[in-house]
Amino acid sequence: MKTLIVHAHPEPKSLNGSLKDHAVSVLEAAGHQVRVSDLYAMGWKAAADAADYGPHASSPLKVPLDSGRAFEAGELTADVRAEQEKLLWADTVILQFPLWWYTMPAILKGWVDRVFTYRFAYGVGEHSDTKYGERFGEGTLAGRRALLSVTVGGPAPHYAARGINGPIDDLLFPIQHGILYYPGLEVLPPFVVYGGDRLTPEQYPAVAAAWEQRLLTLETTEPIPFRRQNFGDYEIPALHLKEGLEPAGRTGFGLHTRA
Amino acid sequence: MKTLIVHAHPEPKSLNGSLKDHAVSVLEAAGHQVRVSDLYAMGWKAAADAADYGPHASSPLKVPLDSGRAFEAGELTADVRAEQEKLLWADTVILQFPLWWYTMPAILKGWVDRVFTYRFAYGVGEHSDTKYGERFGEGTLAGRRALLSVTVGGPAPHYAARGINGPIDDLLFPIQHGILYYPGLEVLPPFVVYGGDRLTPEQYPAVAAAWEQRLLTLETTEPIPFRRQNFGDYEIPALHLKEGLEPAGRTGFGLHTRA
Repeated sequence: MKTLIVHAHPEPKSLNGSLKDHAVSVLEAAGHQVRVSDLYAMGWKAAADAADYGPHASSPLKVPLDSGRAFEAGELTADVRAEQEKLLWADTVILQFPLWWYTMPAILKGWVDRVFTYRFAYGVGEHSDTKYGERFGEGTLAGRRALLSVTVGGPAPHYAARGINGPIDDLLFPIQHGILYYPGLEVLPPFVVYGGDRLTPEQYPAVAAAWEQRLLTLETTEPIPFRRQNFGDYEIPALHLKEGLEPAGRTGFGLHTRA
Repeated sequence: MKTLIVHAHPEPKSLNGSLKDHAVSVLEAAGHQVRVSDLYAMGWKAAADAADYGPHASSPLKVPLDSGRAFEAGELTADVRAEQEKLLWADTVILQFPLWWYTMPAILKGWVDRVFTYRFAYGVGEHSDTKYGERFGEGTLAGRRALLSVTVGGPAPHYAARGINGPIDDLLFPIQHGILYYPGLEVLPPFVVYGGDRLTPEQYPAVAAAWEQRLLTLETTEPIPFRRQNFGDYEIPALHLKEGLEPAGRTGFGLHTRA
């Protein structure tokens, strides 16, 4: 197994840093290859702008078109090309981050914004009246797996089905479905640590053991059964889920996961 | 009316840039005061780190505690203090951004991560077994309004109730409820422009007119009726919505909006 860990926390001695270090140790001890993109340590540039798209960026800038042209011309910046190469090298991608304001930290969003360019992660395949690209089950990263490892400050009940923050599965849907599944990654159920801000040293070993168990079963864990776009579940061109496919009472994001 | 526009697009001549400029013109012509935080033009630092929290940041860094201590000691960086002051000055806050990967661009997330510090935007009020802070309807920014103005590349049907991306209201919930309503802002229904990447010059005047209509009714538009945390709708301490309060069939994020 070849695993890329993308890590997004400013403090190496944080819970996130410990989980990242533990993942490297566990996976390497099991004979796997591991590469780490430690975004804070790398000084990752978060804001996508014209400088990302080489000497031929258009003016006015068109982010999708310019990113796709620069990708195809090999004119993306070296830091972005290196991340795209790591994604193509890996068969498993782990994003390690704290949930800040209900989503990923800015530095990790900036990794997505800059690395997931047009023609690489979107704008792939035929776009016409009868097909809207190869995505959601197809795409550049098809055949690979992804996993979120997320620490959450608040307690688990606040993220339950009736919890005030909304269900954790719905909060993570725009990342798991919209960012990872979109270019073809199969997404495993997330590893979530609640109450991360109050975790004591005495409680950490149980968290580390649970994480180790997930790491050692990456190859056998069933992915979330998101529906594939181009295999009959959706009306074309509206891309509405066809009536009657969902279990009773399923609405919203939940429509897009098979029963 | 005193409006703060936080703008997040790298190209001044983009659709987002035009909508921002139009908002300034329309609001000023109507006699209102406007301030703009143009994050790209400001060179906004997106990644929260120890440098944000002054000379007394702890090691290892604790993001919530350090941000709260620096806030209370007046030791946050000048750029962050300036944004907090603008938020306290404004009675209306507009976030203008393109939807990139189903959420805000990294530079705007970095504005949230760095400006919405502990003790300013969260960690406000009593936290005990019987109360979990003043948030979701109370907090530092209570009494103010907020509005998202969002451009979306794809077509509207893809974001409808059965659309493959998920409903736009659910995609925006973590921002509207989790970021804006959390510290007390009342959130108006969003202004969303679909198909932004294919908008022609001939189509722009209709978009500008619709935007102008929203801008001139900011003070009379009813906010989204999110439920308040501390006024009886939620069980304490789980913060689960009490059974039976939701309309039939309402689940997920939709539970937290009154009928």
